[in-house]
Amino acid sequence: MPATPPRTGVWLIGARGSVATTTVLGAAALRAGLAEPTGCVTEQHGFPQEHLPPLGSLVFGGHDITDTPLPKRAAELAASGVFPERFLAPLEDELATADREIQPGHQGATTAPQARTADALSADLTAFRDRHRLGRVVVVNVASTEPPALPRPEHHDLATLRRALRSRPDVLPPSSLYAYAALTAGCPYIDFTPSTGLRLPALDQLAGELRLPYAGSDAKTGETLLQSVLAPMFAMRALRVRAWSGTNLLGGGDGATLADPRAALSKTSSKRSGLGRMLGRPVEGEVHIDCVPSLGEWKTAWDHIAFEGFLGTRMSAQFTWQGCDSALAAPLVLDLVRLVAAAHAAGASGPLGALGFFFKDPVDCADHGLAAQYARLLRFAADPGAIS
Amino acid sequence: MPATPPRTGVWLIGARGSVATTTVLGAAALRAGLAEPTGCVTEQHGFPQEHLPPLGSLVFGGHDITDTPLPKRAAELAASGVFPERFLAPLEDELATADREIQPGHQGATTAPQARTADALSADLTAFRDRHRLGRVVVVNVASTEPPALPRPEHHDLATLRRALRSRPDVLPPSSLYAYAALTAGCPYIDFTPSTGLRLPALDQLAGELRLPYAGSDAKTGETLLQSVLAPMFAMRALRVRAWSGTNLLGGGDGATLADPRAALSKTSSKRSGLGRMLGRPVEGEVHIDCVPSLGEWKTAWDHIAFEGFLGTRMSAQFTWQGCDSALAAPLVLDLVRLVAAAHAAGASGPLGALGFFFKDPVDCADHGLAAQYARLLRFAADPGAIS
Amino acid sequence: MPATPPRTGVWLIGARGSVATTTVLGAAALRAGLAEPTGCVTEQHGFPQEHLPPLGSLVFGGHDITDTPLPKRAAELAASGVFPERFLAPLEDELATADREIQPGHQGATTAPQARTADALSADLTAFRDRHRLGRVVVVNVASTEPPALPRPEHHDLATLRRALRSRPDVLPPSSLYAYAALTAGCPYIDFTPSTGLRLPALDQLAGELRLPYAGSDAKTGETLLQSVLAPMFAMRALRVRAWSGTNLLGGGDGATLADPRAALSKTSSKRSGLGRMLGRPVEGEVHIDCVPSLGEWKTAWDHIAFEGFLGTRMSAQFTWQGCDSALAAPLVLDLVRLVAAAHAAGASGPLGALGFFFKDPVDCADHGLAAQYARLLRFAADPGAIS
Amino acid sequence: MPATPPRTGVWLIGARGSVATTTVLGAAALRAGLAEPTGCVTEQHGFPQEHLPPLGSLVFGGHDITDTPLPKRAAELAASGVFPERFLAPLEDELATADREIQPGHQGATTAPQARTADALSADLTAFRDRHRLGRVVVVNVASTEPPALPRPEHHDLATLRRALRSRPDVLPPSSLYAYAALTAGCPYIDFTPSTGLRLPALDQLAGELRLPYAGSDAKTGETLLQSVLAPMFAMRALRVRAWSGTNLLGGGDGATLADPRAALSKTSSKRSGLGRMLGRPVEGEVHIDCVPSLGEWKTAWDHIAFEGFLGTRMSAQFTWQGCDSALAAPLVLDLVRLVAAAHAAGASGPLGALGFFFKDPVDCADHGLAAQYARLLRFAADPGAIS
Repeated sequence: MPATPPRTGVWLIGARGSVATTTVLGAAALRAGLAEPTGCVTEQHGFPQEHLPPLGSLVFGGHDITDTPLPKRAAELAASGVFPERFLAPLEDELATADREIQPGHQGATTAPQARTADALSADLTAFRDRHRLGRVVVVNVASTEPPALPRPEHHDLATLRRALRSRPDVLPPSSLYAYAALTAGCPYIDFTPSTGLRLPALDQLAGELRLPYAGSDAKTGETLLQSVLAPMFAMRALRVRAWSGTNLLGGGDGATLADPRAALSKTSSKRSGLGRMLGRPVEGEVHIDCVPSLGEWKTAWDHIAFEGFLGTRMSAQFTWQGCDSALAAPLVLDLVRLVAAAHAAGASGPLGALGFFFKDPVDCADHGLAAQYARLLRFAADPGAIS
Repeated sequence: MPATPPRTGVWLIGARGSVATTTVLGAAALRAGLAEPTGCVTEQHGFPQEHLPPLGSLVFGGHDITDTPLPKRAAELAASGVFPERFLAPLEDELATADREIQPGHQGATTAPQARTADALSADLTAFRDRHRLGRVVVVNVASTEPPALPRPEHHDLATLRRALRSRPDVLPPSSLYAYAALTAGCPYIDFTPSTGLRLPALDQLAGELRLPYAGSDAKTGETLLQSVLAPMFAMRALRVRAWSGTNLLGGGDGATLADPRAALSKTSSKRSGLGRMLGRPVEGEVHIDCVPSLGEWKTAWDHIAFEGFLGTRMSAQFTWQGCDSALAAPLVLDLVRLVAAAHAAGASGPLGALGFFFKDPVDCADHGLAAQYARLLRFAADPGAIS
Repeated sequence: MPATPPRTGVWLIGARGSVATTTVLGAAALRAGLAEPTGCVTEQHGFPQEHLPPLGSLVFGGHDITDTPLPKRAAELAASGVFPERFLAPLEDELATADREIQPGHQGATTAPQARTADALSADLTAFRDRHRLGRVVVVNVASTEPPALPRPEHHDLATLRRALRSRPDVLPPSSLYAYAALTAGCPYIDFTPSTGLRLPALDQLAGELRLPYAGSDAKTGETLLQSVLAPMFAMRALRVRAWSGTNLLGGGDGATLADPRAALSKTSSKRSGLGRMLGRPVEGEVHIDCVPSLGEWKTAWDHIAFEGFLGTRMSAQFTWQGCDSALAAPLVLDLVRLVAAAHAAGASGPLGALGFFFKDPVDCADHGLAAQYARLLRFAADPGAIS
Repeated sequence: MPATPPRTGVWLIGARGSVATTTVLGAAALRAGLAEPTGCVTEQHGFPQEHLPPLGSLVFGGHDITDTPLPKRAAELAASGVFPERFLAPLEDELATADREIQPGHQGATTAPQARTADALSADLTAFRDRHRLGRVVVVNVASTEPPALPRPEHHDLATLRRALRSRPDVLPPSSLYAYAALTAGCPYIDFTPSTGLRLPALDQLAGELRLPYAGSDAKTGETLLQSVLAPMFAMRALRVRAWSGTNLLGGGDGATLADPRAALSKTSSKRSGLGRMLGRPVEGEVHIDCVPSLGEWKTAWDHIAFEGFLGTRMSAQFTWQGCDSALAAPLVLDLVRLVAAAHAAGASGPLGALGFFFKDPVDCADHGLAAQYARLLRFAADPGAIS
């Protein structure tokens, strides 16, 4: 009788947030056959499956600093229209099970050296892996967006970083401390938000040293997703984009976080970075992120594109995108976990540029056009250990 | 001393229309260095050039049933904002030169057998080619859109068609009669509009027999162009499109033609054909084409897309496209002429599926996604004689 | 001890439809203090109340040809997002009570003379009024939209109509037969939809003869509502509207009904009628009504307005309206019932032009601008018996 | 033989700007019968004319700190599509005549006491009035928007202000110094922009003392115009607006000025002020003003409105406004000059609240709804001397 392959763990930083709750509930709904895998890229007909852990084999846990139980969070999200209420009752046990695996997160304000905090976080990961005899645990940061980290010399060299962590309480921003803890526990890592996370040279060194793969950052779920097909369209057609302006109205938690202009800066700069590259030149225009609490879990993006055609004739295009952020993000969390787990199993390490398809500000991926990124993703999925 | 290679002729059916006039003026402006080749796909940095006839070598002529001189048409278009007035004075001579090459077109109402009309049209083409010692003449239909042709047995077999043409005045719709004349004169042909043109089995047989390449049909310059990147985006992301609705407001001549519901049918069905294929399933929704004379040479398209994400959550996207039809179409005419001329020079014949990038309803091209079509176009441009 | 004034009855034609169900549930929610009267014009601070029957005093009944119980319909609507699920449990009894008052409607296909059918419908109304000792019963047609009625001589004269009804089964369209039955039962009537209803000269005569007031037709809840403020804006600013184009995407029942082009004709012509009047001249442009079942109970309207400013400069405006039809309509049903009841109590009869504020195609109201209509409404509410 | 009544002068601060140039050219075009008075409110059929100076009697002059001649500025604007080129040749003489009346403006950087500068500006006005024997000169500020003025004690009392002006070079911002000079020359004044201008208590005292009328401020030509009809619509319908968000993309000069966040503050606060008042409560949402030079003389505004209907159901509306700023503003300058001249002739003084119809931030006008403002405007036009 062949041994069952070990299952894959999913450790969510921000495990009681909207994205995490929708992810856990959604995975349970798929396992129970209550929903189709709409929005799951890796579940599409024709997508190479042989290297991917089955969705049904994922085991969830995570860190969070709040303590609202997952079933309650799920009920709130259903009332806000993130998913239908009918999923709540049949999946309550699954949510409660995942809820028991959530550990208190790192609170930030402490005088202890950060190495000690990292050890505690890391121990939570190891215990989770051992408790469930998991083949591996993929850590995903879905916590609120941080402001950009202030540059520090310790961020540029691993040895310096390690020394600093042993003595000081404020070396790394929280997202990077979680990333450090994940790596030291031997876990692959995904920067799902624009927070700093693993994107520091010293942490990249650590991932390389420990032979761990990572992916990021800032999943594209709306405005940037549309830009990643529209900008290449203008380029392929030799139409000259003069200005691209965007306004994003965000409700709920994400909106509130990004109302802090410093946090918004992380997002607007990652949103803007690819546009000029896809168009082959910088373009005029600003991007705004407004917090509009009345929108609840929904967001609306409006983009206006001023372009020139033949003989300089001025034309324009506009789009409006009205989406539910968590419903757009959650299936991508599942996709990324499966793909990063496959990379880890195949021995890949360092930044996974082949997963640029999912991100606004992709590591190790110069091409921001969605079609090219998708082609690269398919090649990766067929052979996740190959250098891509 | 090396011989100068022979120049390429461009014969425009509808040579005094907005698209034709903008094409002739634009080619002259580029040759004179008065404008950049914005909107010309084949002039982009990095596009394979070695097989393409230079833009500066094109010689223009055509058929039309009206007799407004090209300089006057150009002045009207400039006043409507299709291109700046400053181009008129310096290019007046070039427009007058092209104007002298325009021959009276086929008027439709005649009792003569269509073979006789075809011979006359064909003779115009041959005379043009001889007069300027052209290497070849590419014929492009940019005349007003016709209603769909009524099916007839003669359309399905070349021998039957030839016999019918010798005795009857009403066998082929005008666009197809022009295509027949072009082929018999040894000219490659481009269906730039949704009219029937070369898309009859008997004419495809004729193109094969005479070893002539052809391309078509219905250039995509707005709504369908956007659909060709947005629909693949939804598909790549596994988002389930439920309904895709579109309204097109067209001014000017095209709007008036399409106010005839029978002509509109040609357009709406070619618009709709690719959407279901790109999305992998048929979707709800209608497409409207309204004639709004106040819009002049401009058009506005609004599309609304209702889609489902994870767990069935309903979301939507909208876009508005505001463009000048002739300014969008004219550079594509130049691109297509260069590419079809290259195919002819390289010995290719029959439908050129590799040019599907340009069309709403591409011959011999199953993939309606723009990125895939562009990749195929690049391969074709590098080797226009290869089977693509 | 002062006598309690008699209560007012509300008889809904189409009593199990989305609008009717939302109206009944909403009135119950307001009475129970579970919701604020958002969308109820007559409940606004400052609106004259002295002549209006209190919302809490309304008693509901109606006709319908289907038999899904109201509590079940309400649950379906809540699942579609028309209102939150939390209203269902506390209001279930109220819905069940209203459900028991619903009588089988007129099925259409019968060979009996229509007078006989009208008598039966009328008897239902009288019985309802007597059973609850109601001061009056206001009848509101919220059934599916009918095609425009074919013109007939009987529609123009009351005596001729009466004779015809006694002998033939097909004299009046259903909506008009209900209106006839309402009037003969002594009930004021509201044409809430674009169906013919009371808008036949013979029925107007009957209303006059019986001294009964009526209102209509076709409540404005979206595109037309916006037009009624935007068109006067262009007029006040002397901006010259050239074209006004509209596309309406309707899900659910209304969309399906209007997919029948004949029924749509009722709606598009009532939509279009006011625009030219508000702008002082006819304008170009079409209005489309598309059935898009995926939108469920929601509708989306997009309007594009091409206008000229100073010196003929061309500009444009667009709007998109995304609303839930029943949630927009239901509070207006309550408003209209209260206002028409007040008119009846005050002795007004015939068409109530002062209620034009609520309608696309208002009877006896030349001004289609919303602000002027609102001023007239306020005057009416202060003195509902005055000639307005 | 009756004496011809004296003509009215129009003195434009910023006389070489886009709005001023379009105003002068437009008035000449109307006088010459080359255009219809589209966009001129006071020229509409039915508008009371008896007290208004005829458009053909206006004489133009102004101050500006640049020296591009008006015919050249007009040619630039025509090339940008603000008006058709065909107006240039026949009106060149009129533009040149107006150009000769433009005097160098106040440069700002000087150490002279501001009273001396004001005297010089005032002398220009007096000389203009005398030179042409004008009945009166109306001064209009159409110069670039200034940042909000820093509050100073001198701004609150006329005597203190006079003393300060005699000794100091920096008491008033430029727009207010022009207003002061206009008043001391006996000229009525119009704040067409959001700059401080006459809106200081000390200057209001001066206008009262000298019995001069004034109007302002910040003409509404786009987003705010639409808000002034849409916000009352939501209020009349008792729909609860939750959030109103706006993005304004401005090209040209205005965009560049407003890219200075301090200047933008003048505009965004005047834009925002009326919304809460019209809706009866403050609403969420931000307003952005972006400089997008590629838009040239054009602007695009997008507004998103999140509102609640019956039972709390969430809905939304959006609009896009694409206009040419100068073509929208210029006819309003002509309207305001005529109306303010009539007020002056009729002996009115102080703030003209009845002209609130034209402004985003109207003086002495509590009602921001367009329809109410229009009714008040009509009453004013019928009797400009009455207290309105």
